[in-house]
Amino acid sequence: MEKKFQQLKASLAEVHDIQSVLALLDWDHQTYMPKEGAEERAAQIGTLSEIAHRKFTDKKIGDLLKELQPWAAGRDPESDEVCLLAVAAREYDRRTRVPAKLVAEFARTTAVAQSVWEQALHDNDFPRFRPHLEKIFQLRREYAGCFQPYRHIYDPLLDEFEPGLTTAEVQKIFKKIRQLQTQLIRDLAARPQVDNAFLFRHYGDRKQWEFGVDVITRFGFDWSRGRQDRAVHPFTNTFGLCDIRITTHIYPDNVASALFSTMHEGGHALYEQGVDRGLSRTLLGTGASLGIHESQSRLWENLVGRSHDFWVWAFPRLKKTFPAQLADVSLEEFYRGINRVEPSFIRTEADEATYNLHIMLRLELEIGVLEGKFEVKDLPELWRAKMKEYLGIVPDTDRQGVLQDVHWSCGSIGYFPTYALGNLISAQIYAAADAELGLSKLLRKGEFLPLREWLREKLHRHGSKFAPQELVKRITGRGIDPQPYLDYLNTKYRAIYKA
Amino acid sequence: MEKKFQQLKASLAEVHDIQSVLALLDWDHQTYMPKEGAEERAAQIGTLSEIAHRKFTDKKIGDLLKELQPWAAGRDPESDEVCLLAVAAREYDRRTRVPAKLVAEFARTTAVAQSVWEQALHDNDFPRFRPHLEKIFQLRREYAGCFQPYRHIYDPLLDEFEPGLTTAEVQKIFKKIRQLQTQLIRDLAARPQVDNAFLFRHYGDRKQWEFGVDVITRFGFDWSRGRQDRAVHPFTNTFGLCDIRITTHIYPDNVASALFSTMHEGGHALYEQGVDRGLSRTLLGTGASLGIHESQSRLWENLVGRSHDFWVWAFPRLKKTFPAQLADVSLEEFYRGINRVEPSFIRTEADEATYNLHIMLRLELEIGVLEGKFEVKDLPELWRAKMKEYLGIVPDTDRQGVLQDVHWSCGSIGYFPTYALGNLISAQIYAAADAELGLSKLLRKGEFLPLREWLREKLHRHGSKFAPQELVKRITGRGIDPQPYLDYLNTKYRAIYKA
Repeated sequence: MEKKFQQLKASLAEVHDIQSVLALLDWDHQTYMPKEGAEERAAQIGTLSEIAHRKFTDKKIGDLLKELQPWAAGRDPESDEVCLLAVAAREYDRRTRVPAKLVAEFARTTAVAQSVWEQALHDNDFPRFRPHLEKIFQLRREYAGCFQPYRHIYDPLLDEFEPGLTTAEVQKIFKKIRQLQTQLIRDLAARPQVDNAFLFRHYGDRKQWEFGVDVITRFGFDWSRGRQDRAVHPFTNTFGLCDIRITTHIYPDNVASALFSTMHEGGHALYEQGVDRGLSRTLLGTGASLGIHESQSRLWENLVGRSHDFWVWAFPRLKKTFPAQLADVSLEEFYRGINRVEPSFIRTEADEATYNLHIMLRLELEIGVLEGKFEVKDLPELWRAKMKEYLGIVPDTDRQGVLQDVHWSCGSIGYFPTYALGNLISAQIYAAADAELGLSKLLRKGEFLPLREWLREKLHRHGSKFAPQELVKRITGRGIDPQPYLDYLNTKYRAIYKA
Repeated sequence: MEKKFQQLKASLAEVHDIQSVLALLDWDHQTYMPKEGAEERAAQIGTLSEIAHRKFTDKKIGDLLKELQPWAAGRDPESDEVCLLAVAAREYDRRTRVPAKLVAEFARTTAVAQSVWEQALHDNDFPRFRPHLEKIFQLRREYAGCFQPYRHIYDPLLDEFEPGLTTAEVQKIFKKIRQLQTQLIRDLAARPQVDNAFLFRHYGDRKQWEFGVDVITRFGFDWSRGRQDRAVHPFTNTFGLCDIRITTHIYPDNVASALFSTMHEGGHALYEQGVDRGLSRTLLGTGASLGIHESQSRLWENLVGRSHDFWVWAFPRLKKTFPAQLADVSLEEFYRGINRVEPSFIRTEADEATYNLHIMLRLELEIGVLEGKFEVKDLPELWRAKMKEYLGIVPDTDRQGVLQDVHWSCGSIGYFPTYALGNLISAQIYAAADAELGLSKLLRKGEFLPLREWLREKLHRHGSKFAPQELVKRITGRGIDPQPYLDYLNTKYRAIYKA
């Protein structure tokens, strides 16, 4: 049996190798690939994806998984071996339930839809994108159908990104958010607006880069197992537990954008760099879910990076780096400036207080279409109505509305909620760490390694061994709960706005 | 039959995709990979190499190749289809003749040998490397044995790098070189040495980078299908006909090194960028052999880049870029400086007049060991004796002698001659182009595109459709011939040294 397990592990390691290489192909595409290289690159990605899929869904893998079940039953359920078998069985089931024909049609449809979406975004032309989006929703419905019986058609889609979480749970969470966050932003809007014009002076490129690098180095980013490059849309990618790379985008006339992006991606990378190296080349050797991952990026970007305590330490350093640009700015002004709340159209530019509402809107539209309550053709109008309701503003164009995100064109329906879950979980985990470490004192001194070590011990090292909710429970004593995040928002922003 | 051909082509394209990805993994390893990433990267390379090997040597490929033979016989022998079948059949035969066990043992042995060699080089410790090199020679003998009957045991090894070339031909070529080049360097050594101290002033980094980029842009490098990055040991790699990348290494206190390296690698890249795009994702979509490839890099680096005509155009520009550093240097002094001849220990730093002798020495040692005339343990002493004989100098250490090259540790025996062949062929091709285009006039005006177009038309576009010698014959009217290169060296260097 031991031998069979090793055999399974070796086969899965090969699939993992191919998937790591696919990640590198994507990283290269977004960082260094010359522009004409796209077509041949697509062929390479197609070839490797197919090989990985075929290898993973091979009947031999299924047989080994079945044969090893009794062996696993007799072992420590928290051992690497048993967790690997459980996650592999789950993935095998998920991938083999869906007919190859549907997988292929979905791949073809989304490949076309992405370029149509790009053009539609550019031309502000939703009707052009509409039939592709309709097809995508249709194919996602068929995908969900492969997992019947389900409680809700959205469950199997959500499960792809946040294993084990149900639509009912998500809806319950968002119900709480809706009420409290809309009230909060209404109250803030009634107060005088905070000034942040000084963030948009000329800060150049090189010094911004160096400042960001210095900050995440102090957070504990390991440069012997990672690097930072430039990309239009910043992201983090893992090519192995000893090769984790982040990207950033520097705007010379915006000192906040690159820095918070570097802290955000650095947070993702710290998670991956903290995974137990014994999990290398296995399905367990990566973060547990998108939501948990986002909790780590948001924790470093927001709970740490936008906190007053952090800037007590960091602001004198930033001022020394940019003496002319920040000569007339005080710590308090800076802190308020980077925490300015302002309802806006674009999700990726949203502040902490409004962000979750952007997600809620998308979630409601996705579920509405899947339930048959909404039609794709009505999404632009529904978008505007919900923007009005939640944020009090209405975009003039679909480019600033329903067309803004790439996700739907990729077929990633069920993905959005993970962003908001990440916010909620970040506050829960931060509170737990704070209770043990007393973070305020540490941040004010620029001492971040105790926090990284705590996160590594409690969360990072486990990789994907445990399901997201189980992880949250192990760390915080209870499941995903929006209250700590809502409390955090209320306390922080009512103080800043004296609301 | 047409359908079977398409089936074969599709299968070969998949193998090609994997091999292109392997090239990217290597490029990334040498440019951006964080240092701890090596182990997981090695696993990824191992997995993909094995998949590519298994796919290519699949019996189905062999059957298709056989079935398609009569179909090919009825078609234009110069068509892409027939050439692809011929090259594929040759490669299939080469790879399937060697038992998987031997392939695996060779891979294991060289993987270990490379790290032992690195350490041995560092510690100047040949005895440590010796048993590994003995094993490598032994395995290469077994490899050659798979291709019996052969005329010479070196033939199958040479064939791997220079298809169709025989040991007898190479030996005949080198006999001519030995006599003429050793005489030439003896005569030059008797003359007063040329001054090149001004090359080693402080030139910084950025302007050197920009100057090199400008030069190869004028050569015709297509930046939409390529890029340049930094690497310790410069190289060129192809990930598709629309993604060809070069690397360079800039020494702030040496204005010659990076520039000639960029022209050299640029020459390789121009070759690949010139391959007919219809050959993309096939075995034909790359240069014909290492020797032909080297002819292109050496043509741009030396025949163009180290010519007086080129510097008539380029020197005023270089002087404008580095006015302080070159204030007291004339065109004639600069030209002589970059063409200084000086017997030296390290091959990669050798000048044009001595380079081939470094190769000849290695060739004689490789053949001697394979023939059983020499033993591996005697190589350090043999190295010193031959250095004395050909170049008149003797290295103090094995680090500057027998240990200097990585090639043997990788098992690349039979590779070295291609460097010298490249030199010879470069002169043959340059002479043919010159006869048609009148290159002197063009170079003095900085007009390089006519030469690139000529090379593209005569050579580049064919990719690997034709064997190296056949290509040389098509372009120059005769086979590989050392005389034009020897004439070139004699004329150029006797003029510079007034010898």
